[in-house]
Amino acid sequence: MRAINVGVPTFAQALAAQGAVVETVDWRPPGRGDPALAARLAPLWGDEVVEAANREAWGRLVAAEPVLVDLRPAREVVPGMTPDTILHAGPPIAWERMCGPMRGAVIGALLYERLARNEREAAALAASGGVRFEPCHHHAAVGPMAGVTSASMPVYVVEERSRGGRAYVNLNEGLGKVLRMGANSPAVLDRLRWLERTLAPLLARAIQASGGVEIRPILAEALQMGDECHNRNRAAGGQFLKLVAPHLAALDPPAADLAAVLRFMAENQHFTLQLSMAACKAALDAADGVPHSTLVTAMSRNGIEFGIRLSGRPGVWFTAPAAVPEGLWFPGYSAADANPDIGDSAITETAGLGGFAMAAAPAIVQFVGGTVDDALRYTREMYEITMGESPVYQVPALGFRGTPTGIDLRLVLQTGIQPLINTGVAHREPGIGQIGAGLVRAPWECFVRALDALSRVSAPDQA
Amino acid sequence: MRAINVGVPTFAQALAAQGAVVETVDWRPPGRGDPALAARLAPLWGDEVVEAANREAWGRLVAAEPVLVDLRPAREVVPGMTPDTILHAGPPIAWERMCGPMRGAVIGALLYERLARNEREAAALAASGGVRFEPCHHHAAVGPMAGVTSASMPVYVVEERSRGGRAYVNLNEGLGKVLRMGANSPAVLDRLRWLERTLAPLLARAIQASGGVEIRPILAEALQMGDECHNRNRAAGGQFLKLVAPHLAALDPPAADLAAVLRFMAENQHFTLQLSMAACKAALDAADGVPHSTLVTAMSRNGIEFGIRLSGRPGVWFTAPAAVPEGLWFPGYSAADANPDIGDSAITETAGLGGFAMAAAPAIVQFVGGTVDDALRYTREMYEITMGESPVYQVPALGFRGTPTGIDLRLVLQTGIQPLINTGVAHREPGIGQIGAGLVRAPWECFVRALDALSRVSAPDQA
Repeated sequence: MRAINVGVPTFAQALAAQGAVVETVDWRPPGRGDPALAARLAPLWGDEVVEAANREAWGRLVAAEPVLVDLRPAREVVPGMTPDTILHAGPPIAWERMCGPMRGAVIGALLYERLARNEREAAALAASGGVRFEPCHHHAAVGPMAGVTSASMPVYVVEERSRGGRAYVNLNEGLGKVLRMGANSPAVLDRLRWLERTLAPLLARAIQASGGVEIRPILAEALQMGDECHNRNRAAGGQFLKLVAPHLAALDPPAADLAAVLRFMAENQHFTLQLSMAACKAALDAADGVPHSTLVTAMSRNGIEFGIRLSGRPGVWFTAPAAVPEGLWFPGYSAADANPDIGDSAITETAGLGGFAMAAAPAIVQFVGGTVDDALRYTREMYEITMGESPVYQVPALGFRGTPTGIDLRLVLQTGIQPLINTGVAHREPGIGQIGAGLVRAPWECFVRALDALSRVSAPDQA
Repeated sequence: MRAINVGVPTFAQALAAQGAVVETVDWRPPGRGDPALAARLAPLWGDEVVEAANREAWGRLVAAEPVLVDLRPAREVVPGMTPDTILHAGPPIAWERMCGPMRGAVIGALLYERLARNEREAAALAASGGVRFEPCHHHAAVGPMAGVTSASMPVYVVEERSRGGRAYVNLNEGLGKVLRMGANSPAVLDRLRWLERTLAPLLARAIQASGGVEIRPILAEALQMGDECHNRNRAAGGQFLKLVAPHLAALDPPAADLAAVLRFMAENQHFTLQLSMAACKAALDAADGVPHSTLVTAMSRNGIEFGIRLSGRPGVWFTAPAAVPEGLWFPGYSAADANPDIGDSAITETAGLGGFAMAAAPAIVQFVGGTVDDALRYTREMYEITMGESPVYQVPALGFRGTPTGIDLRLVLQTGIQPLINTGVAHREPGIGQIGAGLVRAPWECFVRALDALSRVSAPDQA
């Protein structure tokens, strides 16, 4: 006798015990077996209004053409940026509820902006209501880890040329003790000032001289070179350096400045993480706001809560508590030291890169844990919850299959598969910095809450 | 009934026809079934003198530490280089027997050196005996494709720090119409002069200022980034640029020169092929000359003949006619236009890179043909004929297994598996250039002849 067992393994076990050959299909009931959830989910399938909305949203996502056009102080370009604004990662959060690394970064930003003379003054200012805290995502921006961005910080300006939007992101400071990980020592602030005064003005002129740097070809090439464009960015870094170094040299800057800028870009293996993030943000914003679409247009974390956003419900966050990533720890640290998941960088997974493209980056398992087979398996799994395969970003190890792109809320709830994210991990105390890297899943509850919100819209034309 | 069939498939077919389950083992008799060859091969197995020699040779190969220390005109550094010397790829060959692209390159080199005023004069000089033609390999050097290197051409100086040898190689000119592919137009010569007068002096000072560039870490990293370091070199190019660009900038050269040098390095996707080749040459020369070793220390082609060299028989070439690679052709060309296999670049395969490391470079199948599975299969196959796995160069897609390193003459003859080479293909006429890229096998006859030579050495102590 030969049998195929679908779902619950008990039958297969009984048959196998009697010597029968059993093929097992890993099927789970929709909504993880919650009948109420399954009932709310069912009407979204086969609804032509939803299907058409998703085709539109997904089409915009993959047609997006992000081009790096400038690098300016945030106050000059980020919409709604004021001198007292501090942008942060994830859904909205008040100072009182912020996690350690985000507080550390906020204190660092207030010192950097000279809005406070010391840590104590900075904390008092933050607690007094004298600082306007806003999510990056509310200002067309993204920021890795704490995501803290203040008015004087230079931000990349990425133009989305298929529909005309713009996205913004700060500069990458490198690894270890850096503001985005919650560190705020004088060395951290000195580096931020050097980025502002030396690197950014030069790099801005080089970007302008280049006529704009198309980001998609850089990321597509990087995927062929072992980057997944979230936690591994060294190939993209090399490609970006190849593009801008000749323009930097042609500016004829002081040799010492040029050498220092080139060295910083060359030695910072995550220098282009921000370009990847801004490109993904620009593409997902292009896909945002399509009524009735179940496309997930943001996944982001403030270190306390994880939030997702839906194309069909623009501007609304569906949140749940953030989990602690599982991964590899730098010497001397463990999971007990780890802050829960933090940062806007999951925008890369939302657009089909990062954890979704791990099969393109086998070497990353040495940084986040697991085996090369795990990397292949993760990408294959993400095809189950995405609307399609990228026509631009390909995975050589999967025979050049496009990356799994565009998370469908319905597929997550149908399959029970939570989106996988590659991420850095910050120490939970302010001032320390990065302590490891690993993997984490987007919380199930976010997706259930998004469905609830959709279900409360009784008919599509009232959305 | 369940059966295992070893070798000849007839038995398996008969069993399968009767419904039996048959596992087939792909075994072939030693020496491809030639009893005389097998008889000459047998004494080399289990001979402790040979085994010890191979341990010594292989140990030297993988312990080699190639470091780029300088870039100088060939006449200043290459041993035995004279103003009338022209080095070429492969085993020795006279002007009369040279293939089209090698003749084209020789004519170009004579014009570049101003030893002739036009093509006709150059050809007459070459035919007159007024030029000293020598293999690169006879001067501790290697050269890709035609390998033509003349006295004024700048060559990298690579120091092998574990044993103290040096290897030399010319600069990479880019793709298409280039001297190494047999082109010799004024544009080709102008580029060679720009390399000599602008790029080389600057890059030499940057290399000196760096204190020497270790090549092994660049190649090891490149293998994690989709290069196989022969026909795909873009990751290594990015890594090398990251290392030298800051030093170039610190020299404070004229901005236009610096920009042009950085642009040339950035846009030439094969700029570091030469570093890969010189590193492999340095490592294999360190392993050369171990009496009784059956390690292959060079595979090289002059466009007419393919030659191999053995550690235990230093300086001797074992040759056979070169084959035409199978691959992908640039638009407008076909196999009928292809010159047979040419170049010293198979030194990379000899050291465990290139075709032997194809599993690290899945994207290369889009350039040389085949599928990603083929790339994995080729590397797995090469483990059958190599002495060990590199402790330095790893393949992520094979769970970070070391590349198959150090071809054992005995294993080639035992298994019948010919070494696989990734290669560019030149047009068979002089003056045209590259027309494609593909794969080719080292000719079986080379290995048979090498065995014959070993067999004529009656006892180990007389070798």
